[in-house]
Amino acid sequence: MAFNLLPKEGKFFEFLSMQAENIVKAAAAFKEAVKAGPFSEETVRKIKDFEHEGDTLAHEIADMLNRTFITPIDREDIYSLSNNLDDVLDMVNSMTNRIHLYRLNPSNDGMIAFADNIGQAAHALSNAVRHMHDTKRARRVLDYCIEVNRLENMGDQLRDKTISGLFEHEKDPIMVIKWKEIYEGAEATLDTCEHVAKVIEAILVKHG
Amino acid sequence: MAFNLLPKEGKFFEFLSMQAENIVKAAAAFKEAVKAGPFSEETVRKIKDFEHEGDTLAHEIADMLNRTFITPIDREDIYSLSNNLDDVLDMVNSMTNRIHLYRLNPSNDGMIAFADNIGQAAHALSNAVRHMHDTKRARRVLDYCIEVNRLENMGDQLRDKTISGLFEHEKDPIMVIKWKEIYEGAEATLDTCEHVAKVIEAILVKHG
Amino acid sequence: MAFNLLPKEGKFFEFLSMQAENIVKAAAAFKEAVKAGPFSEETVRKIKDFEHEGDTLAHEIADMLNRTFITPIDREDIYSLSNNLDDVLDMVNSMTNRIHLYRLNPSNDGMIAFADNIGQAAHALSNAVRHMHDTKRARRVLDYCIEVNRLENMGDQLRDKTISGLFEHEKDPIMVIKWKEIYEGAEATLDTCEHVAKVIEAILVKHG
Repeated sequence: MAFNLLPKEGKFFEFLSMQAENIVKAAAAFKEAVKAGPFSEETVRKIKDFEHEGDTLAHEIADMLNRTFITPIDREDIYSLSNNLDDVLDMVNSMTNRIHLYRLNPSNDGMIAFADNIGQAAHALSNAVRHMHDTKRARRVLDYCIEVNRLENMGDQLRDKTISGLFEHEKDPIMVIKWKEIYEGAEATLDTCEHVAKVIEAILVKHG
Repeated sequence: MAFNLLPKEGKFFEFLSMQAENIVKAAAAFKEAVKAGPFSEETVRKIKDFEHEGDTLAHEIADMLNRTFITPIDREDIYSLSNNLDDVLDMVNSMTNRIHLYRLNPSNDGMIAFADNIGQAAHALSNAVRHMHDTKRARRVLDYCIEVNRLENMGDQLRDKTISGLFEHEKDPIMVIKWKEIYEGAEATLDTCEHVAKVIEAILVKHG
Repeated sequence: MAFNLLPKEGKFFEFLSMQAENIVKAAAAFKEAVKAGPFSEETVRKIKDFEHEGDTLAHEIADMLNRTFITPIDREDIYSLSNNLDDVLDMVNSMTNRIHLYRLNPSNDGMIAFADNIGQAAHALSNAVRHMHDTKRARRVLDYCIEVNRLENMGDQLRDKTISGLFEHEKDPIMVIKWKEIYEGAEATLDTCEHVAKVIEAILVKHG
């Protein structure tokens, strides 16, 4: 029974994919909530649940790393990718908390565009992670990473548009402070997605 | 006289421990100052002295790395851990400056809880660093890292509580801007502590 | 024809130097614009052009890494240095956008001092990168890195001075929000320069 000598190797990519897929689901839930209006306690709990699931997956990957001798790519790269994926979810969760805490109604054009953008970036990251194991087809993975970069660029433009609109139309400084933080958080979430893409690209470069 | 062939090896852990211990002392001084009320020039100077001491230790570690051929763990990991420990102290120093510059009285429940939390995180980090050399007992080090994660989670809750309280009770936008930065700085200090814990965990994973 | 067996090796340092030189030019243009008063569309476009050039150079380096088997220093270090240099330019570009977007007149003592400081840091980084290939004279490169650290320390002082001045003289909270972001962005640009210096130092440590 010499088949499948290194069953653990594949598991890393499987668990990283599960982490990415969990982000896709969280981003979809976030987008639905943004469209619907002010956040309920239930929305906050729902996103928190995704974040917990993400933490669990990250810990499982760390534990696997501790128990596995041979890894398909450098162990510190798996660790870094897993941590960076976790950061994306932390930021979605943090934005959700802030919107709720500040009692804001997020259902406006700018915020919906941001939520949509984050959803697409999560999707592209998930595709990139899912195909990473196939090192012979690195081009495909790189294309997903480029897609994430494109979405992050759009995020920069969205940020400029939403914040200049804010300074133009909102005269209450307290509301400016609150919304500025939310829009910046949305852009920072896309920056974090781009950072994950860069980690993936760096891994490909190393194995190129 | 073949004993102690590699005296330099142990020194890295000794100096990293001194760096961590220096943070413990700075955090204790910060906590005392927060409890006492508005910061004096002397408080600012005292914390600055700890930061200088930290810089000196970090430079000594970098110099040792330049002169040592064999290191107990990868040289770039020692370098990264030292830099990240330094970041914690930079943030405590930066918060201290800001509180003084903005002429705030930090002696309130939220800020005292933050200072206490930072003190505990510094203590846990110091314990983790002090036991890192004993790779056979990695579990103990990991437990200290988990303690840092727990304190960082408490920091997130503290941040939500202090900032929502701020928006509720403080009507002067200028004061909101100032205090929001201080509370966010306190939380970011705990994030940096957690980052150090992650660097330590990554080193353990690599040598696991 | 055995001469120049590894022509690609030198190219990495050449391209990294071009990236650094591009930052020097962008920082000079930024400084000129700051002195001249409110930013025109043309200023924004000019800085954006430098950023595009920087992106192109970073992509060319990444492509070279993908096609080159032997690299003069670890491929992930080249990749990291290139990305971090790119971050500096992103921040100069982002500050430029913000000043334009917020319709601010940047021609004041604090902002001119910041622009001057950033120009000097870019210059020191460029010198450091240009001499990196000569590993036997690491001391010279380290001196340029120390110069960057000094400029970053001055940046911290500038930040304290400009922001405390802001809270003292500016009574409109909206203007405080806008200027605070600009001054913090200027300091963060210097932090990023220091981060590049740390990446260079870490590479030297590794090869020390």
